[in-house]
Amino acid sequence: MVGAENVLVDDPARLARATGLSYLDLLRRRSPSADFPVPDAVVLPADPDEVQAVLDACVQHDVGVVPFGGGTSVVGGVAALRGEKTSVIALDLVRLDALVSVDAESRIAVLQAGVRGPEAERLLAGHGLTLGHVPQSFERATIGGFAATRSAGQASSGYGRFEDMVTGVRLATPRGPWKLGVAPASAAGPDLRQLAIGSEGTLGVITEVALRVRPAPPVRRYEGYALPGWAAGAEAVRDLAQHHALADVTRLSDVDETEVSLALNAGLKTAALRRYLAARGVRRPCFLIVGWEGTAHDVALRRRETARRLKASGAVRVGKALGESWRHGRFAGPRQRDTLLDMGVCVETLETAAYWSNVDELRDDVRAALTASLGRSIVMCHISHAYETGASLYFTVLTARDETDSVGQWQRAKAAACEAIAGLGTISHHHAVGVDHAPYLSAEIGSLGVEVLRAAKSTVDPTGILNPGKLV
Amino acid sequence: MVGAENVLVDDPARLARATGLSYLDLLRRRSPSADFPVPDAVVLPADPDEVQAVLDACVQHDVGVVPFGGGTSVVGGVAALRGEKTSVIALDLVRLDALVSVDAESRIAVLQAGVRGPEAERLLAGHGLTLGHVPQSFERATIGGFAATRSAGQASSGYGRFEDMVTGVRLATPRGPWKLGVAPASAAGPDLRQLAIGSEGTLGVITEVALRVRPAPPVRRYEGYALPGWAAGAEAVRDLAQHHALADVTRLSDVDETEVSLALNAGLKTAALRRYLAARGVRRPCFLIVGWEGTAHDVALRRRETARRLKASGAVRVGKALGESWRHGRFAGPRQRDTLLDMGVCVETLETAAYWSNVDELRDDVRAALTASLGRSIVMCHISHAYETGASLYFTVLTARDETDSVGQWQRAKAAACEAIAGLGTISHHHAVGVDHAPYLSAEIGSLGVEVLRAAKSTVDPTGILNPGKLV
Repeated sequence: MVGAENVLVDDPARLARATGLSYLDLLRRRSPSADFPVPDAVVLPADPDEVQAVLDACVQHDVGVVPFGGGTSVVGGVAALRGEKTSVIALDLVRLDALVSVDAESRIAVLQAGVRGPEAERLLAGHGLTLGHVPQSFERATIGGFAATRSAGQASSGYGRFEDMVTGVRLATPRGPWKLGVAPASAAGPDLRQLAIGSEGTLGVITEVALRVRPAPPVRRYEGYALPGWAAGAEAVRDLAQHHALADVTRLSDVDETEVSLALNAGLKTAALRRYLAARGVRRPCFLIVGWEGTAHDVALRRRETARRLKASGAVRVGKALGESWRHGRFAGPRQRDTLLDMGVCVETLETAAYWSNVDELRDDVRAALTASLGRSIVMCHISHAYETGASLYFTVLTARDETDSVGQWQRAKAAACEAIAGLGTISHHHAVGVDHAPYLSAEIGSLGVEVLRAAKSTVDPTGILNPGKLV
Repeated sequence: MVGAENVLVDDPARLARATGLSYLDLLRRRSPSADFPVPDAVVLPADPDEVQAVLDACVQHDVGVVPFGGGTSVVGGVAALRGEKTSVIALDLVRLDALVSVDAESRIAVLQAGVRGPEAERLLAGHGLTLGHVPQSFERATIGGFAATRSAGQASSGYGRFEDMVTGVRLATPRGPWKLGVAPASAAGPDLRQLAIGSEGTLGVITEVALRVRPAPPVRRYEGYALPGWAAGAEAVRDLAQHHALADVTRLSDVDETEVSLALNAGLKTAALRRYLAARGVRRPCFLIVGWEGTAHDVALRRRETARRLKASGAVRVGKALGESWRHGRFAGPRQRDTLLDMGVCVETLETAAYWSNVDELRDDVRAALTASLGRSIVMCHISHAYETGASLYFTVLTARDETDSVGQWQRAKAAACEAIAGLGTISHHHAVGVDHAPYLSAEIGSLGVEVLRAAKSTVDPTGILNPGKLV
């Protein structure tokens, strides 16, 4: 039904869809003795109808289906688990690569699930539009993946999280097609779009997403500030968020992350910058990146308001170089991991979010848990998404890799961090649940919540072919 | 378990919880021959634990439970249907009237479900805070009801819809307590808060809601503009919404609604105003009410931006009198309905929402459907909630009441309007589903969507005691 050339059974094709990009995935791929599940075949449908036809066939033959987009999951979301099934395929959506329609008046564009970040922007740019969704996985990840995992981009303070952009979702399910989203907002019962978003391929295969888009911004202005320490920095970001003065990108590094930036960033005249900041009372700086996108009028208006509030919060302006250098290096992080691994360094990230009154305690607890588990290590943290009621916390961990038990070393550290998070924040702010976070889900949404998700799944997927072993 | 004095079985108490406030409800209450279901008893628990205990007892004795807040449903949401049950109670939550906690740093307040609009504002004002949720039902409706029905207030452009304010929900279910919401945003699977919000008492009894609150605004500024006709008005509102320049209250009346305002509003010097507008090219005015709330600085800044864009859209400023007169009369509408009924007038409202490219067609179609069904009538319409991708449409209908078949007259008109809505917009923007909209729900969320909701309900309410016959 998809054509023989779109069913791949060779080892390289199957291996390429067997894992995501977590540190554990990188380890698995390096180890000659690694034992991880691989799909029996890769199927590449061309459009939503072919996705539906493949699902129907998989129901008929009782074959498990792992939807596959950019393969950037860091939580085991694309692991080729087969559950009770004897066979499992990776359903690669990369051929669903079209911009289906643009409604310029309503500012809505419908994109197919397999469109990657840069291609989405390129297609929309042809209509003078932008999506503005720029997570660190932007270069590889897809529209369907963003929706399936409740992704949040680096400019989420301005453009919103991905779920804020979604006006409609089209899914293929084992029970047939399912389409949601007829109006910007509705009181027609619970918002089932918010059930489809974050369903991680367990409630259907997302084939098209209708998205709120905006005019491509003629002006992008990024700059850096420094704040005297974490507490002052978090307070300044909270002040911006609660006064609706956030820049589109608002990203606060803690002292440790700032020190690493200072040490590694060749574009900054570090010594002069330190003297400049010290002269203004900032001896242990926390860098704050702020970026606005829009018309010149709009950027100027909003920038003035952000600057006014930051000044009152004790922030010292560092200038454009810091903002631009962050902007240009924003996707580089993940690419450096293999090099660091070669050098014997364990490097991984994890993220959470909490209400403001829990943010400091949560940061302390997660840092303490990681350090207690890993021993000597660098734990950096930043706020990359701020809300009126709270903020995300994103941790980057570097430590010497335990060559005898690299997997166990990180699994223990991650478990310790997850235990520290439970009760204070969410187990995932924008990385989803997958396999890795599944043990912690019921603490967050209750065992009833997990049962409700299972009941929803049983309804749309009675024989359980969809992404076995994920989410719930 | 709640004390004998909190179980009422007298007729007035039961009758008072038997209906909501729709036109059909008013007719039922007036007709000596009306036949409508009445709960067998009214139970008034004092707190979430007592709600849970009552539910447990109702499971044990297989008694239906209709959660009851302000009783302002206009869609049959509190009708005492018993489904398969031999008995049904109204679970009146009015004694759950506490402000549970305030987290000023996170700007979150937890309110119990029975707190009414004005009392919520009074309790929060004690902490210098406001919720800012002001639907037309404000004076009577409750926090639990707002959440259960996905309410939207008149200032939703500034404060958001009720679901935007909810950070957490606590429910009592037949399977035990259920608590949701640990962070401002999360990627830990689907957002189940958005399943609880809008569940209309079918997935549990909402007992407490954690809400994002804001500082009580020192300045409130309301004023009026006039636009030359509906198309220009809708275009101006769209321009504001898509440039993030909406006032907190943004409300555009069509020509018919504006003419009624001009005819009835004693505070406006109508003839002079008409001359003033005509001299500026506005011969068939559409009134636009805009209102800002906040600090003087913030209101001034935002008002300037709104005014700048409105001027460019051809709007003519009418002044403060129009804004203030709307603000002071904003809750009066529903109270006038009994008087109109006495005068032989059928008066009712209905609302929908659509993407911008559908808004004009939807308005035309609903007006045509209502007029075709009712014959000579006044159909007024306004936009009261605008989004980047679309807007709500709120219709008010007045026609001579058919004394021989008042109920059928409106039921046929409403059905015609609902048929016109299906496919172009949502069956309800902020009035929920209840009994009246249930036949149209599957057209909106798919039969799979309805099945998913039923599966969720079966999970938390296996014996089906919760609000029988509502939503699905």
